[in-house]
Amino acid sequence: MMHLGLFIAGEGHHIAAWRDPRARSGASQDIQHFAELARIGERGCFDLLFTADTQAVFYGDDTEQWRRTTQASRLEPITLFSALSMVTEHIGLVCTATTTYLEPYHVARQFASLDKISGGRAGWNLVTSSAPAEAYNFGFDGHPSHEDRYDRAGEFAEVVLGLWDSWQAGAVIEDQDSGIYFDPDKLHRLNHKGKHFSVRGPLTVHPSPQGRPVIVQAGQSEAGRNLAARTAEVIFTVQQDKDEARAFYADIGTRAAAYGRGPGTIKIMPGLLPVVGKTRAQAQEKLETLQSLIHPELGLARLSAMLGTDLSGFDQDGPLPDLPQSAEQPGRQKVVSELARRENLTIRQLYQRVTGVRGHRVLCGTAEEIANSMEDWYRSGAADGFNIMSLTYPDELNQFVDEVIPILRTKGLYRSRYEGRTLRENLGLSTPG
Amino acid sequence: MMHLGLFIAGEGHHIAAWRDPRARSGASQDIQHFAELARIGERGCFDLLFTADTQAVFYGDDTEQWRRTTQASRLEPITLFSALSMVTEHIGLVCTATTTYLEPYHVARQFASLDKISGGRAGWNLVTSSAPAEAYNFGFDGHPSHEDRYDRAGEFAEVVLGLWDSWQAGAVIEDQDSGIYFDPDKLHRLNHKGKHFSVRGPLTVHPSPQGRPVIVQAGQSEAGRNLAARTAEVIFTVQQDKDEARAFYADIGTRAAAYGRGPGTIKIMPGLLPVVGKTRAQAQEKLETLQSLIHPELGLARLSAMLGTDLSGFDQDGPLPDLPQSAEQPGRQKVVSELARRENLTIRQLYQRVTGVRGHRVLCGTAEEIANSMEDWYRSGAADGFNIMSLTYPDELNQFVDEVIPILRTKGLYRSRYEGRTLRENLGLSTPG
Repeated sequence: MMHLGLFIAGEGHHIAAWRDPRARSGASQDIQHFAELARIGERGCFDLLFTADTQAVFYGDDTEQWRRTTQASRLEPITLFSALSMVTEHIGLVCTATTTYLEPYHVARQFASLDKISGGRAGWNLVTSSAPAEAYNFGFDGHPSHEDRYDRAGEFAEVVLGLWDSWQAGAVIEDQDSGIYFDPDKLHRLNHKGKHFSVRGPLTVHPSPQGRPVIVQAGQSEAGRNLAARTAEVIFTVQQDKDEARAFYADIGTRAAAYGRGPGTIKIMPGLLPVVGKTRAQAQEKLETLQSLIHPELGLARLSAMLGTDLSGFDQDGPLPDLPQSAEQPGRQKVVSELARRENLTIRQLYQRVTGVRGHRVLCGTAEEIANSMEDWYRSGAADGFNIMSLTYPDELNQFVDEVIPILRTKGLYRSRYEGRTLRENLGLSTPG
Repeated sequence: MMHLGLFIAGEGHHIAAWRDPRARSGASQDIQHFAELARIGERGCFDLLFTADTQAVFYGDDTEQWRRTTQASRLEPITLFSALSMVTEHIGLVCTATTTYLEPYHVARQFASLDKISGGRAGWNLVTSSAPAEAYNFGFDGHPSHEDRYDRAGEFAEVVLGLWDSWQAGAVIEDQDSGIYFDPDKLHRLNHKGKHFSVRGPLTVHPSPQGRPVIVQAGQSEAGRNLAARTAEVIFTVQQDKDEARAFYADIGTRAAAYGRGPGTIKIMPGLLPVVGKTRAQAQEKLETLQSLIHPELGLARLSAMLGTDLSGFDQDGPLPDLPQSAEQPGRQKVVSELARRENLTIRQLYQRVTGVRGHRVLCGTAEEIANSMEDWYRSGAADGFNIMSLTYPDELNQFVDEVIPILRTKGLYRSRYEGRTLRENLGLSTPG
């Protein structure tokens, strides 16, 4: 069966979504808005809700750019998703926490708590911080290198996974008569002493029905792929092209096998922005209406940030120049510059294509065309499912649920009700013993 | 009007509550149990829910002690309280986060998010970590000194308060036509550079209807009182004796005035464990039934930890010896040892009195007697209200709500419905501009 994530955001995933006349004022900080999206997600039997994060406002030297976006405005994900756990029953709750600036004991404990509170529906999107602005909020004068961040991330994951295994099955005895609450032989200290962290444990939180939260990752670089192959159970990825997606899928499989992990242990879900119309032309028109709302200064500044090169000196109607390799986001740079070369896009066309939706794949078409393309990727070994991102919330999401999901069901590709109680059960992942 | 906090805990505040035949299995990690307590709190029109925290399992060299308690078992407070925000409408949500091991940007953001999600009901119990076991979970070989922790706490509070003021009124413009989302002149960087922290800001979260979360503190030491007088809006305190409570109340008022803070800007709420019976003797019998369930090894070990001295070599039926001053918790040590002297208690009597409920005041009596004592403290300038801790949950709490609160209302001391929408409004605190 195909797996679907619902990648939530305030007004929508298009950078100009907040300017859409249907947008709700204040949506990016409105819990009732997010609760509605979560309920739509359960109506659509999505495997999981997801949210990204950045621990900074992108505001400073480039005021002109950021005051045109809602990206300065973001609730903290764990807080948001704990709240959403109480208005949902089935959907998984995957949110982002960085390994670059937080403490593993704290992160392990917050996700274990979310897992326990939600009855086994939590997932941790393990990221390294890619925004230099975050460094300044956490006591650093500059951004740590890509290599350092991944080195720290690997050890961070090891600590968190170790802490989640603190309480062995049977550790909680709770015998009122003898007065013994737990069995110390089954409650384990981690005693981790590594390069970055020294953490004793154990954790204060008991395992949930799914054993421990699901580990999710999204890195595209060499280091990111290796970390994912070693530790991830779900991978969110940016893929524009089916063959490249298949190559990525196969590459992860090979790397995972080298760590002794078999097929099916990692679910790969590329981001997808479905734009549904009665005709393909109508869908494209909806997209172009939003594209036209991207202010040029905003578009160019965002593209420059994505590629790690200031493009303001280049002709916007000329081709993308050769770029020095990005030290910060080499994976993202590669995907975006390959798109420009493949489709022979000007800088202006490129920023319209990729800054609107941050490089993710947009698929304009009828519901049937979208379902067919999803089926094609799924059956070709390019994806186990998709992380669905709507241009605007809630309207475009409702349309996807009402029009595309029924076709996937007719094809026998997608559930009509949740198979299990936990996120692991719904994703078809094993529950740790 | 008198203000009441509801200090929640799993099975109850008595260390042996989990052995009470009415205790619910797994209560300390059961979200439905906590949701029920929160709803009882709203039925009783409590100002706020509160939970303490320790980021460690007390388990290690003293296995014998800790396996007899549920204290190893604790959900992370922010996660828990975000969830509870969705099943409540009125009650304040005050939870604990340590300034000793976390990062101020992260803490500021999580509490601002809880404040936003709950519509202006959040409060932050700002603590310094007093359990050495926490240090080992956060990369330290030993526990920082009391002085260092308070030094860091003061700067931490300054950073958090600064970040909460990032978005000036009117900063969010959200003008769809011009495409301007916010006004950069009204979104402020903090640019804090201090001894412990360097934090640029701004925060990603907009102010809630109450402006910012309420600051709560509980320190009794010199440094704790000064920090509270400077920054706290609510103080939870341990007080056994009305005159000592009055002296504490007056002392905080004097210290606050030195910081330019007038009367009414800090609400002082001593902890209170009401044990309600048809007669006082019946209430005392309920308490003694629980006391008898404290295992002697557990009681003695807990008392030693509270006082900072190993008492296992002393005669349990003899008096408390003179103690070297505790470096860790001088305030708590003073309160507990003064109790022993005043009432001429043996070590055994003392551990039964203070380890059962961690030194807080237990008041056994009829509903009328309990309400009268609360009134007396309130009218004598010993308290603005109380932080109510029940021996067992939910039974003893329901009894307090059903029997004591109506008497307080009859006396004209307590609300019958919430006055305001936000925690600040209900506490009678001003909303920052």
